[in-house]
Amino acid sequence: MSLLSRTLTQIEPQDSRTRASAHARLEQLAIPHWALGRLMDLAEDLAGMTRSMRPPIRRRTIVTMAGDHGVTAEGVSNYPQEVTAQMVHNFVNGGAGINTLARQAGARVVVVDMGVAGDLGDLAASGQIESHRIGAGTRNMAEGPAMSREEAVRAIESGISISLQLSSDTDLFGTGDMGIGNTTPSSAIIAALTRSQVADVTGHGTGINEDRWRKKVAVIERALAVNRPDPNDPLDVLAKVGGFEIGGIAGLILGAASSKRPILVDGLISTAGGLLAASLEPRSADYMIAAHRSVERGHRAALEHLKKEPLLDLNLRLGEGTGAALAMHLVEAAVRILTEVASFEEAAVSTGEK
Amino acid sequence: MSLLSRTLTQIEPQDSRTRASAHARLEQLAIPHWALGRLMDLAEDLAGMTRSMRPPIRRRTIVTMAGDHGVTAEGVSNYPQEVTAQMVHNFVNGGAGINTLARQAGARVVVVDMGVAGDLGDLAASGQIESHRIGAGTRNMAEGPAMSREEAVRAIESGISISLQLSSDTDLFGTGDMGIGNTTPSSAIIAALTRSQVADVTGHGTGINEDRWRKKVAVIERALAVNRPDPNDPLDVLAKVGGFEIGGIAGLILGAASSKRPILVDGLISTAGGLLAASLEPRSADYMIAAHRSVERGHRAALEHLKKEPLLDLNLRLGEGTGAALAMHLVEAAVRILTEVASFEEAAVSTGEK
Repeated sequence: MSLLSRTLTQIEPQDSRTRASAHARLEQLAIPHWALGRLMDLAEDLAGMTRSMRPPIRRRTIVTMAGDHGVTAEGVSNYPQEVTAQMVHNFVNGGAGINTLARQAGARVVVVDMGVAGDLGDLAASGQIESHRIGAGTRNMAEGPAMSREEAVRAIESGISISLQLSSDTDLFGTGDMGIGNTTPSSAIIAALTRSQVADVTGHGTGINEDRWRKKVAVIERALAVNRPDPNDPLDVLAKVGGFEIGGIAGLILGAASSKRPILVDGLISTAGGLLAASLEPRSADYMIAAHRSVERGHRAALEHLKKEPLLDLNLRLGEGTGAALAMHLVEAAVRILTEVASFEEAAVSTGEK
Repeated sequence: MSLLSRTLTQIEPQDSRTRASAHARLEQLAIPHWALGRLMDLAEDLAGMTRSMRPPIRRRTIVTMAGDHGVTAEGVSNYPQEVTAQMVHNFVNGGAGINTLARQAGARVVVVDMGVAGDLGDLAASGQIESHRIGAGTRNMAEGPAMSREEAVRAIESGISISLQLSSDTDLFGTGDMGIGNTTPSSAIIAALTRSQVADVTGHGTGINEDRWRKKVAVIERALAVNRPDPNDPLDVLAKVGGFEIGGIAGLILGAASSKRPILVDGLISTAGGLLAASLEPRSADYMIAAHRSVERGHRAALEHLKKEPLLDLNLRLGEGTGAALAMHLVEAAVRILTEVASFEEAAVSTGEK
């Protein structure tokens, strides 16, 4: 049995008994009923995921998956492809947005080369990044499949392996991405899996103008017409219009779910990975926490398809895992509410009328 | 010159030159333009407030103002008035929501008795709370003014004094409140100052049912009809339909603004205080940061009147300062983005097309 098949069979739903215990405890807190709102919903989820009334979340890892995209040849981004490798160096040097916000959140950042076009061999050799290169960037999906089905499976299994390996000292995961052009395959995946119109799920990425946006929509429409990905077959969708780092993120989520670890899903690209994971095994969504709502148009559709309400809405569109890092504070708040706030009885406070 | 008048004259707007420097720095960061969205807006604000490119925010204080309300005699809340004093004990014992979330945010909680009906003399004598009692709860505003104009001034000046005193070792303030029934005067203040219909700015407080909600609306309408507060005179509004802790919060904000300290404004009750402060001196709004959008209906109107977009939207309706504590993480993130993220040049990353 392959790692992928085995992982899918190992994903169990949240534990309903621990959820119920957490719910009962939260209802007794010396506050008006459910007055801490979504943080209480989250606390209940965390109890269900971790099977614990004291959900462990102290050891935090954000996995930032990097990859390049042949479709950049179509001029869908403002930035040249070399920026992907340059940003990986920036991650390693600690100067990027994700480094900053992960430091604040007490999370380590693990950078994975899933298939960057530039040479990152020096960083891999020195152990500063993890190397799971499937190729030197995907092929141009506007002209044919971005990758083979076998490469798609390898990308997902790489994500699973990383996740299982990190699970030994990680309580709480966050997803992240880096890849010039990667909003284009992400929107294509979302269009395919949610059966949406391309224009409805395609945004302005790094900040393209209207002319380039129209071109981007046309490129995605062409990629879908040329490849005809089967929306009932997530591996086919990933292979034909996906990306190596997006497959890696899908695998990371599946691995976290199989290890019963909560995983904060970052923005558009990560949520495209989340959609693939949920298409492969719907129960994996039980372990996903939507970190934030990105500016990117397709993110809303993807979150709605996953029935996830994001924790933050701050007009972010950076990726890297920055939204996941920010949301870690709210995950910690949820756990503290469950474990530290006194009940009416403990605090000797009169209850309200029933 | 009174403390209030002197404080109002000392409030200066944000510094436009430091704002511009911060803006220029943020535009050079090695990320797509303004891709960290509202956190970048916030970083620019913090630079403007503190006149610093490294806005100090390390020393954090949440001031939770407690008071009781004569209008509870009308049956506007689910909880008995004694809960206010019981919750102050809970704050002192560290078991409340605000204690939990302030601990996480690295903030100390200063609890102030602005006029609780129950006796808190023991806690004041032992220095566990600050005592600035204006009275043993307000009078019933449905029958006449909640307090005298002189008491209203004293409540605000108490807030100012506390703020000025704490400013010596506080970089970042948060507001908080405790007072059974205090959504009722808060909605009355908001209705008066924003000239809104009472039903449009009155919510369900601690969770009252529809019958009680209709009664609450009627009580507020009666209070406004009986007292006829002058919307151009915020002291008149506070005196007639306000509360001691709401005046204290207004003063706290004015004092923070005069000391050029950012202050996170919590939910409905705090924002009613914020509206009073901005009515007394519009420039005080330059130092207010809206922490979150509460479930309470009137909060939206109050925030719109202040032209403030809140940072969080988590269906909170607890008060105590819990939203302010949660938002402190985002304030820190904003400062870190301004001070830690590398520029394109520093990171040797290629810029996009202009």
